[in-house]
Amino acid sequence: SVNPDLASERQTASFSVEKLTARLDGGAEHTQIRRAVVQAIECDPVFSRENQYFQSQNERYEAAVRKAVHLQKKMHEMGWTENGPEFKYIYRALSGDVAFLLHRIFMRSILVLGSDKQIAKWIPLATQYQLIGSYAQTELGHGTYLQGLETTAVFDITTQEFILNTPKISAMKWWPGDMGRSATHTVVFAQLYIHGKCYGVHPFIVQIRSLQDHSVCPGITAGDIGPKMNFEHIDNGYLMLQNVRIPMENMLNKFCEVQPDGTYIRRGSQKINYFTMTTVRISLISDEVIIPLMKACTIAIRYSVVRRQSKLKPGEQEAKILDYQTQQEKLLPQLAAAYAFHFINEYLQELFDKGYREIQRKNFDTLPELHAFSSGFKAMVTQYCTSAVEICLRACGGHGYSLLSGLPSLYTKILASCIYEGENTILLLQTARFLIKCFMTASAGQPVPPSVTYLAAVKPGKCPAKNKLDFLSPDIYTEAYQHMAVRLVSSTAAKLQDLIQSGVKKHDAWNQCTVQLAQAAKAHCHYITVKNFAETVEKLETKAGIQKIMKHLCDLFALHGIFSNAGVFLHDGYISGAQMDMVTASYLDLLAVIRKDAVPLVDAFDFTDKNLNSALGSYDGQVYQRLYEWAQKSPTNKQVSPAYERYLKPLLHNTLSKM
Amino acid sequence: SVNPDLASERQTASFSVEKLTARLDGGAEHTQIRRAVVQAIECDPVFSRENQYFQSQNERYEAAVRKAVHLQKKMHEMGWTENGPEFKYIYRALSGDVAFLLHRIFMRSILVLGSDKQIAKWIPLATQYQLIGSYAQTELGHGTYLQGLETTAVFDITTQEFILNTPKISAMKWWPGDMGRSATHTVVFAQLYIHGKCYGVHPFIVQIRSLQDHSVCPGITAGDIGPKMNFEHIDNGYLMLQNVRIPMENMLNKFCEVQPDGTYIRRGSQKINYFTMTTVRISLISDEVIIPLMKACTIAIRYSVVRRQSKLKPGEQEAKILDYQTQQEKLLPQLAAAYAFHFINEYLQELFDKGYREIQRKNFDTLPELHAFSSGFKAMVTQYCTSAVEICLRACGGHGYSLLSGLPSLYTKILASCIYEGENTILLLQTARFLIKCFMTASAGQPVPPSVTYLAAVKPGKCPAKNKLDFLSPDIYTEAYQHMAVRLVSSTAAKLQDLIQSGVKKHDAWNQCTVQLAQAAKAHCHYITVKNFAETVEKLETKAGIQKIMKHLCDLFALHGIFSNAGVFLHDGYISGAQMDMVTASYLDLLAVIRKDAVPLVDAFDFTDKNLNSALGSYDGQVYQRLYEWAQKSPTNKQVSPAYERYLKPLLHNTLSKM
Repeated sequence: SVNPDLASERQTASFSVEKLTARLDGGAEHTQIRRAVVQAIECDPVFSRENQYFQSQNERYEAAVRKAVHLQKKMHEMGWTENGPEFKYIYRALSGDVAFLLHRIFMRSILVLGSDKQIAKWIPLATQYQLIGSYAQTELGHGTYLQGLETTAVFDITTQEFILNTPKISAMKWWPGDMGRSATHTVVFAQLYIHGKCYGVHPFIVQIRSLQDHSVCPGITAGDIGPKMNFEHIDNGYLMLQNVRIPMENMLNKFCEVQPDGTYIRRGSQKINYFTMTTVRISLISDEVIIPLMKACTIAIRYSVVRRQSKLKPGEQEAKILDYQTQQEKLLPQLAAAYAFHFINEYLQELFDKGYREIQRKNFDTLPELHAFSSGFKAMVTQYCTSAVEICLRACGGHGYSLLSGLPSLYTKILASCIYEGENTILLLQTARFLIKCFMTASAGQPVPPSVTYLAAVKPGKCPAKNKLDFLSPDIYTEAYQHMAVRLVSSTAAKLQDLIQSGVKKHDAWNQCTVQLAQAAKAHCHYITVKNFAETVEKLETKAGIQKIMKHLCDLFALHGIFSNAGVFLHDGYISGAQMDMVTASYLDLLAVIRKDAVPLVDAFDFTDKNLNSALGSYDGQVYQRLYEWAQKSPTNKQVSPAYERYLKPLLHNTLSKM
Repeated sequence: SVNPDLASERQTASFSVEKLTARLDGGAEHTQIRRAVVQAIECDPVFSRENQYFQSQNERYEAAVRKAVHLQKKMHEMGWTENGPEFKYIYRALSGDVAFLLHRIFMRSILVLGSDKQIAKWIPLATQYQLIGSYAQTELGHGTYLQGLETTAVFDITTQEFILNTPKISAMKWWPGDMGRSATHTVVFAQLYIHGKCYGVHPFIVQIRSLQDHSVCPGITAGDIGPKMNFEHIDNGYLMLQNVRIPMENMLNKFCEVQPDGTYIRRGSQKINYFTMTTVRISLISDEVIIPLMKACTIAIRYSVVRRQSKLKPGEQEAKILDYQTQQEKLLPQLAAAYAFHFINEYLQELFDKGYREIQRKNFDTLPELHAFSSGFKAMVTQYCTSAVEICLRACGGHGYSLLSGLPSLYTKILASCIYEGENTILLLQTARFLIKCFMTASAGQPVPPSVTYLAAVKPGKCPAKNKLDFLSPDIYTEAYQHMAVRLVSSTAAKLQDLIQSGVKKHDAWNQCTVQLAQAAKAHCHYITVKNFAETVEKLETKAGIQKIMKHLCDLFALHGIFSNAGVFLHDGYISGAQMDMVTASYLDLLAVIRKDAVPLVDAFDFTDKNLNSALGSYDGQVYQRLYEWAQKSPTNKQVSPAYERYLKPLLHNTLSKM
């Protein structure tokens, strides 16, 4: 039975939840396929995440391996293939709780960097799981700066082998997933030396564990890097190499080759593969970032209409906490952001598909723009969504702090997305470099890529809004974002120029502008996101109330951004103090409007209870009952307190006689 | 041996680290006592936290009980008493990793709410640990709103007992520390009923577990609420009561009494005890909030001078990451905040000591002001420090994400401080209520408490700064903060008035202003913090370079606040866009100045390696070595992969012949 406080929220939906779900999925037929996958996975007990919050790192790892193995069987049974329409829903249905993800990266790196002969040898073995692969790039002392890697691979001309070594502790491979305990092979990135000359970083296939008894191979030291904030199910590992010899054909050599006499040959263009790597940043946004935010919103908003606390009006019963303006102001902007990022993700996917087709036709012109997009949006979206999930967690008070709410795991996992696949600050600065370059080019009257032509059209002007309703016009706020982005890019470009002209060296000048450069890159991405949301709303069908509610969310996303970053809009007077008061008024009004549809808006994300795995967020809203039921299953309740016999009993003298 | 990259940072300190430490401790003699306590605790293996990051919830709990028991012995051995100068350092030395903290609250509540007879009976038993107490207030469905508690205590006139019940699931006690597995007794807060009439919430002593075999008593259901984001060492518990009968003398009856015939009598003033509860919010700020931030700064800053990544200047070796402006901008404002909050904490302690003396003389005039202080600063400092610790964590990239860095635990623990002892938003609104009231009073020409007289002195004006150096004048920025706080309080008061005058009901009007009210309360606390920091710097000794470096930190804290909240300063034109550029310039300049002393500034916090318990933050900076050593101790490396035999072996066919 559904909690009546939750049920009542669904009766007043201003739009068709089912139609919105179909729109989010890209069509009702996709919704159907997704639900079928979810259903098949969730009815299979092997994939259960029921006890996840009670498990140790060892247990999580074992379960993830079990699931990965079982998934092979399941896919075969269900007739799902890697190229089928079901595939993209599997990972989502499993909530990513599965091992051997690096095995896929191992295979991809061979497909991308290996010769036909290498592909023919290794891919069938990997496909049939006759080995388990990993990908060993990051070192203890080296993450983002690839050229700084210290592992060495020296060509031994006499034996026609490479000798791999970890010359010092900072060169130890550190972090590779699946490597700590599972992998038998890995692609090691190492500095190639021939006749004492260094040729830079190259990839080598190295066997690290026996295929017979799984013991580590001679010269190999490998293990698990220990406990992390999340990802307990993944055996991120370390690897040290001591005079490990591998045959010369184990260097992946599609783009370069070492000949038997030690001659080094480089060939072909890596551009397309560089592009492949770039797309990883875009592909992670949906599964690893937006879906977790949608889950967090679902949990926090459902909880906030079931939880009653204090009285809003004297004499009435305690109020649903979502009826408090402060709670709305915490949660509803995050909900709007989840939609904003869903739509920008669609936009990016399309952009990259188009880019890929161009690149296949050997047109590499869009590469810098796509790189800037993938860097900037990866950074901006991961950062925004991480903060948003944290806000959802905090907004649930004490119960949000319990692992059983599901929110702590969502937070500790999404947080990693700010670091992996490019640390966010570094990525923002790459986008900034592109923006500054384009701004200079545009200022010189030269053509620039379509996404940044706006930089050329610097209009001074002021915001024309005259009352708070004007700020519900997408033209008004999109223009404000654009103005702000241009100002931040142009003023930072000017500062950079000034510094250089005043004699500061180029790299020092750059470093002295980086705080502002990162801000400018974020502003650019924020502007594109708002613009895209507004354009998406335009194109939505007007029936079934969907366009109307999406328009409200778009307005909220845009005005929340102005309200929370007021300084950058007020700075040059584009928006005046009086106009900022109008923004605030419209923004607060919107909260009350959207609050009415809050539950239907999260229902549209269509998470099953099993997929949410939250005692606070289930569809029926029976929060307290579920917290109690789940708590009883905790291992802390499964044994007599180990502390009692040993420590408490000697303390607690029999005092009955005295009482 | 100290990592040379860290050692070099210490050679150029502009001030005496030892003297700054002494200042932070409140005198060299306190430093000496603190170090002696730390030394005594750390040389005792029972108190070791060495394997903490590898332990399960059960193991953490057991260790915390062991430590609590051993601490009694240790205190006796060392001659430490609860009133001695050592006492306040013990909890810090243990990093709070100890059980039975609620036992102390149990005792305090009896001392405060109990009659002399009750004190005479229970306190000796508790002191000698012949029972273990807890404090059962919060319920599954009720946290901040005490009047909403649902547990009932019905007076049975025939047996002269109270009958306690949990009428529904939302009434179940939930969260009380030490109650899940340890406590034998607890103070239960329940609605008192006599002859069917409800007299509101009252405290009752209830035995929940046998003193002989620790089994739960008849009518009691109790257990552990399960896994949380942190506090694994505490057995936060649940408790359900079914017709549990307790003798009538178990109602704590200093302030009210039920007579045998059911007559209810209330007596005395609870004001002083209300004050006692208020001080808890202040007392937690140091141990639970500021010290964790100091630890996070120590870890992140030491790591940032040892970690080298990418090149700042072409041709040179990779740069220390603290040399990047973006890294400075992440960490140094947090360092400044740690000092700012240390000093505001000193100020608050003094204020409350003074208030306590007044109240003992039956002068209750300062109570509303002290309540507003304790609420606002608890909320503001916990929120600020939680964000700051998160920034430190993120600034350490992948290694920060490892539990071995110590940062995840600091973050997941400090996060709880935003929720417990009053949820922050609710606290801010209490402060706001005080501010609005004082503003109204002041506007009417009536006197107001000293801390808010500034609200009366509304000066329109503009910031007089003419160049970036002017913004290094405390008068200039303190004035700006004051102006901003006055504006936010007065404009929100005006909005509230307008709404009410336009016919909106008072409670609705209040709700519609709460987002802005919370902002105003934060602004008030921020202003007081800046002002206090500036005044503290004034009074510091000019010798040994301490005043100079503290002045820099004060400037940084103030300018960072203006830079990050630019909107509220620009809004009415008090600070112009051009002046904001000066703020930004001075702010960025300061980063480079303070960066030189960053390591000495964290060294002054004087944490031992054992107390930090961080592979990244140790005094010698041997980061990579320690990460490797610690990782090897992980339980994930202590057994053959459980997944291998069961899942991997069947997968991995012998492929040697094919390779």
